[in-house]
Amino acid sequence: MELVCLDLEGVLVPEIWIAVSEKTGIKELRLTTRDISDYDELMAHRLGLLDSQNIRLKDIQEVIGKLTPLEGALEFTRRLRSETQLVILSDTFEQFAAPLMRKLDFPTLFCNTLDVDKDDRIIGYTLRQPDGKRKAVEAFRSMGLRVFAAGDSYNDITMLQAADQGLLFRAPDSIKEEFPQFLAAEDHSALLEGIRDFLCARPMAAGKS
Amino acid sequence: MELVCLDLEGVLVPEIWIAVSEKTGIKELRLTTRDISDYDELMAHRLGLLDSQNIRLKDIQEVIGKLTPLEGALEFTRRLRSETQLVILSDTFEQFAAPLMRKLDFPTLFCNTLDVDKDDRIIGYTLRQPDGKRKAVEAFRSMGLRVFAAGDSYNDITMLQAADQGLLFRAPDSIKEEFPQFLAAEDHSALLEGIRDFLCARPMAAGKS
Repeated sequence: MELVCLDLEGVLVPEIWIAVSEKTGIKELRLTTRDISDYDELMAHRLGLLDSQNIRLKDIQEVIGKLTPLEGALEFTRRLRSETQLVILSDTFEQFAAPLMRKLDFPTLFCNTLDVDKDDRIIGYTLRQPDGKRKAVEAFRSMGLRVFAAGDSYNDITMLQAADQGLLFRAPDSIKEEFPQFLAAEDHSALLEGIRDFLCARPMAAGKS
Repeated sequence: MELVCLDLEGVLVPEIWIAVSEKTGIKELRLTTRDISDYDELMAHRLGLLDSQNIRLKDIQEVIGKLTPLEGALEFTRRLRSETQLVILSDTFEQFAAPLMRKLDFPTLFCNTLDVDKDDRIIGYTLRQPDGKRKAVEAFRSMGLRVFAAGDSYNDITMLQAADQGLLFRAPDSIKEEFPQFLAAEDHSALLEGIRDFLCARPMAAGKS
């Protein structure tokens, strides 16, 4: 049996922190691990910014609720889910993703979790596990699944390496040049074509009967 | 983060082989592992019966396509997927399940696979892995997920034992008496209530910020 693992932001929905930055006008929320390489430090910075402006979880959820999936993403996932199995692997937080998952007909999502106090303040976060995308793909393969994985950036590379087949979706040329072993696609229809090729290449079963 | 793992037949959809038996009139297709304890032998018997009557995969899919999910199952899974993550773990075959998954808005399903030749004859099957429900739950927990599992019969017991919380859904009294450590529910609303209690009992996070 086959499973497709997709990154969320950049593949199916916009980059969430960038959208939150634009809608709240807090430019510093645009900083990424390219600017502050330590993720804990980056998140502490982001949560400090939100807290200093008294922005609560529901404020951010309202902002995210106005976002829409990338053009064609809903039709793509509908088609995909009628042909094979899908689990989305993301570094975002379940509370951020929820309004967007609704607009994608609730595909299964494994991601991280914000810690929120009773006053709806975001006080921290809990990672599902370190290097969680790679480890999820490894665990899926240990379940006897053939895994196709697609993502758009450096934080997806270990997941792509762990999969039976990896694909870079709308990745910068520099990443595609560094990792020529992966397929590449610039739109959802090419991504779907890559997945269908993978499904057709199912190895002949041992065939008990 | 939490994940709910549900058995398929008896929890969300009718027993598929029994339905196929009724619709095709082949009574022997009702036999289960209670009648022929060796699963390989049982499946060889079933596939032999189909072949002797010249029944192809598409004939069975047509029969299954007329089935509907259990009453309330669609509303239950819709509600569930808006509140947490769901993966269905089943011993059925992906080709059998497909028409029913469509009627449940395509939840993620991990199950087994029929081997079908170019003339659409079912020539065998490939198990995802032995004891696949239990191993899937163990692998999900290794991904940092808290797992709630529910099923209706003996072949679900190891999955329930491997989960953080197990629930017997419409199980015979004998099973409920033998495994009093599991919750029990007789309808989808009680099942959903059990799942919500599990979600609320999320342990307080370490809380980085």
